[in-house]
Amino acid sequence: MINELNKVMEQAYEAYLSYRHVSGKVKKVFLNTIADEIEALGDVLLETASKETNLPVVRFTGERARTCGQLRDFGRLVDEGSWVEAVVDTRIEDRKPAPKPDMRKMAVPVGPVLVFGASNFPLAYATAGGDTASALAAGCPVVVKGHPAHPETSRLVAGAISSAVSKCKLHPFVFQHVEGTSFEIGKILTQHPLTAGVGFTGSLSGGRAIYDYAAGREVPIPVFAEMGSTNPVILLKDALMHRAPEVARQFAGSITMGVGQFCTNPGIMLGIKSSVLNHFTSLLALELSMLPAYKMLHKGIHQNYMEGLDKVLYDKGVETIYHAHATGSLVASPVLARVHADTFLKNPDLHHEIFGPFSLIVVCNNKQQLIEVWESLKGQLTTTLIATAHDLELHADLMDIATTVAGRIVFNAVPTGVEVSNATVHGGPYPATTDQRFTSVGMDAVKRWVRPICYQDCPDELLPEELKNSNPLGILRKVNGEFTRTAIG
Amino acid sequence: MINELNKVMEQAYEAYLSYRHVSGKVKKVFLNTIADEIEALGDVLLETASKETNLPVVRFTGERARTCGQLRDFGRLVDEGSWVEAVVDTRIEDRKPAPKPDMRKMAVPVGPVLVFGASNFPLAYATAGGDTASALAAGCPVVVKGHPAHPETSRLVAGAISSAVSKCKLHPFVFQHVEGTSFEIGKILTQHPLTAGVGFTGSLSGGRAIYDYAAGREVPIPVFAEMGSTNPVILLKDALMHRAPEVARQFAGSITMGVGQFCTNPGIMLGIKSSVLNHFTSLLALELSMLPAYKMLHKGIHQNYMEGLDKVLYDKGVETIYHAHATGSLVASPVLARVHADTFLKNPDLHHEIFGPFSLIVVCNNKQQLIEVWESLKGQLTTTLIATAHDLELHADLMDIATTVAGRIVFNAVPTGVEVSNATVHGGPYPATTDQRFTSVGMDAVKRWVRPICYQDCPDELLPEELKNSNPLGILRKVNGEFTRTAIG
Repeated sequence: MINELNKVMEQAYEAYLSYRHVSGKVKKVFLNTIADEIEALGDVLLETASKETNLPVVRFTGERARTCGQLRDFGRLVDEGSWVEAVVDTRIEDRKPAPKPDMRKMAVPVGPVLVFGASNFPLAYATAGGDTASALAAGCPVVVKGHPAHPETSRLVAGAISSAVSKCKLHPFVFQHVEGTSFEIGKILTQHPLTAGVGFTGSLSGGRAIYDYAAGREVPIPVFAEMGSTNPVILLKDALMHRAPEVARQFAGSITMGVGQFCTNPGIMLGIKSSVLNHFTSLLALELSMLPAYKMLHKGIHQNYMEGLDKVLYDKGVETIYHAHATGSLVASPVLARVHADTFLKNPDLHHEIFGPFSLIVVCNNKQQLIEVWESLKGQLTTTLIATAHDLELHADLMDIATTVAGRIVFNAVPTGVEVSNATVHGGPYPATTDQRFTSVGMDAVKRWVRPICYQDCPDELLPEELKNSNPLGILRKVNGEFTRTAIG
Repeated sequence: MINELNKVMEQAYEAYLSYRHVSGKVKKVFLNTIADEIEALGDVLLETASKETNLPVVRFTGERARTCGQLRDFGRLVDEGSWVEAVVDTRIEDRKPAPKPDMRKMAVPVGPVLVFGASNFPLAYATAGGDTASALAAGCPVVVKGHPAHPETSRLVAGAISSAVSKCKLHPFVFQHVEGTSFEIGKILTQHPLTAGVGFTGSLSGGRAIYDYAAGREVPIPVFAEMGSTNPVILLKDALMHRAPEVARQFAGSITMGVGQFCTNPGIMLGIKSSVLNHFTSLLALELSMLPAYKMLHKGIHQNYMEGLDKVLYDKGVETIYHAHATGSLVASPVLARVHADTFLKNPDLHHEIFGPFSLIVVCNNKQQLIEVWESLKGQLTTTLIATAHDLELHADLMDIATTVAGRIVFNAVPTGVEVSNATVHGGPYPATTDQRFTSVGMDAVKRWVRPICYQDCPDELLPEELKNSNPLGILRKVNGEFTRTAIG
């Protein structure tokens, strides 16, 4: 196995030597072709994904659109070209005591990137998902370790990418797909000297193991592991008074979306003890009771969900508000529970993510205790405020806690359904991710796979297009401290 | 000791809670005041630094100017404000199947930053050096672990910073100075849960130890360790034919600058076997012989230099070209040695940095072997090409190696003397640094101390100034994919 994996990484590095020079224009065509090829797989892809995940076919119509959309978005980004953050400081001959040299910098691709896809998003966060799309956009060849929970889906998508590689006449090893169920494969690939970075979406234990392998290398490499969170929702009084039924309906949908198998699932909701909070709780239970129960992705996830529930629901002080006793293999019952903050603060087990259609309402005595609970939670991908303008006026100080706790702060909406935008941050303090300085969704995800290079007094003809005086690509550059698309000199 | 250090970090975090909200305008005044206070220390600072480092007073006139210059540069950067990289995607109500939410992101400070200064730059890379200046600019309180090799200098500068903190009426713990010789102090501070990031300049063994402590934490934090390199210089034929005397003079100065105690010291020079290379070697030896020998920083560095020389010079196949047999306590003799590439490639000991006024000329049989040697060297801060236009035309393929090996590529100049500019990259592949994605010199050094936050559908009045519709700070933002300073709506 080791020889085979060595060969994979050597091939990826060989591809890097040419792929890193491929222009934004060509990369755009390539990324668009991948999207076209994925769409050309037609219904067989949706049906295969559905069969392998127990999720409905219609869900994959949306996920495919998202996957192809972000491939095309990254294509536009690198074709436009300003993403390399070119900076130029021109020479100052008469500077004392010595002339100031000409200095120019830009981002360049780091090298072969290893991607571990998620089981819960077999299209958008997997083989041709955000990690792969952003790494290919950056100019890095990609090695995907296919997720064993959806091997056939991964194989189909890998075939689509390989077909795009061939149609675009790129180096054949710009993309490679590795299969296997052994964790050892991931370890060997992470530790391989030619691997330059790792994208991972999955569990805390898996992500941390990969991070530790990477940090323990002779040459450490960055690992961008997105490991989920409980996504605390803050329920404020005036909002509950005026919008409880609507909020309950929204959150019942969010808690059960994708059978709760979303890293942005609202797993903990905080409110201050009151009749409106009680009323909201009843409404949420009612809304949940009207939703059917579905099968989870696979046996391991289902078992973890059942064990997680057992741990929490039989805990002293935790009250089960709603528990659909659904039956059938792998079926997950939506569950709503409630606990008082005094109990919650004393029991770290209650702070953990339960991956599935579950949410825990934490009832606080007052605002001070609500803040204490919120701050006691570890790093989060998102945190949500359900609040009217009046609530926010009264509690503007909560903004500080929100920005400390999470990477994305949502106002009066559900945290599930991460928008792919220029401004997206899908990341957050550990253990939500291993590197809160970056996002794994949205256009800035490309920044994970580059490093800056500085050219000092380099002759113009040897400079990359992005840094030449004439600015042939017309990109936005910072020239002598001013942002401009104008040529130099 | 632990209790005391705990208190330091708790105080730093307390300062963070207010300092993170301090405006760019106020931070500019603060950074300028630090510079003023350092200048106000007058000659006593220069004399103290000289006494503690064995370096001449005049050297510190320059280093002080650099230190104060970069403090003021960071002040201008954060006052202008665009450095937070604000991105706004506005709401699209009629997007199908659901409205696109309003998403806005910007960089915010990560938390208290720990700085380990370098012994070789007691001003520019130490107490108020680039790490401290950039972290304070970002909005992060700083804890400096003063370098035991220049305690009095560090204390003077720390006093200047504290005086600026007080004059600017900032939280008293925005800056703290910790003294002590025990390595344990650095370990405890790095592992403290409230430490959010670490800047380090020093040896590979020290930097790697700090990196390992940080990566082994329950919540890993980034470490930006700059650990030096051999900064390979590529000597091409046409340049040597036309400019050997000038190049020899420049490099004799570069090799011995600061008694060779620069992380960008040109420790390895590569050329292809030829009479011009021999001629250049003789000229370089001659130039070195005209320069006096000076004292090194301290006993430990001097001892390492002597041991490093012993290891290399008595190695079979290494020829000593010039060795000034200077005497006197701590005095370092400039040394030039030569080795054939065949020997060099077989002996990893020869690849290591020898911190001091030493350079090794590696004679290659041909271009292919030169590339082999160049690629065999580990990650570098810089690599330099001494080349005419004709050389570069013949050897344009060398650019690929240069950008793989180093963070900064210098053309026809010496690598020492790192320019502080918008385009500076003082960083490079490991072991030059632990994180090649960032620079520790130049304006982008500020990016090491931030993380992005995304606000989704946030009411305008709760947004930070940088993200408000009206763009009150007038900063450059990416709005719906276009860079603009215009207000929204």
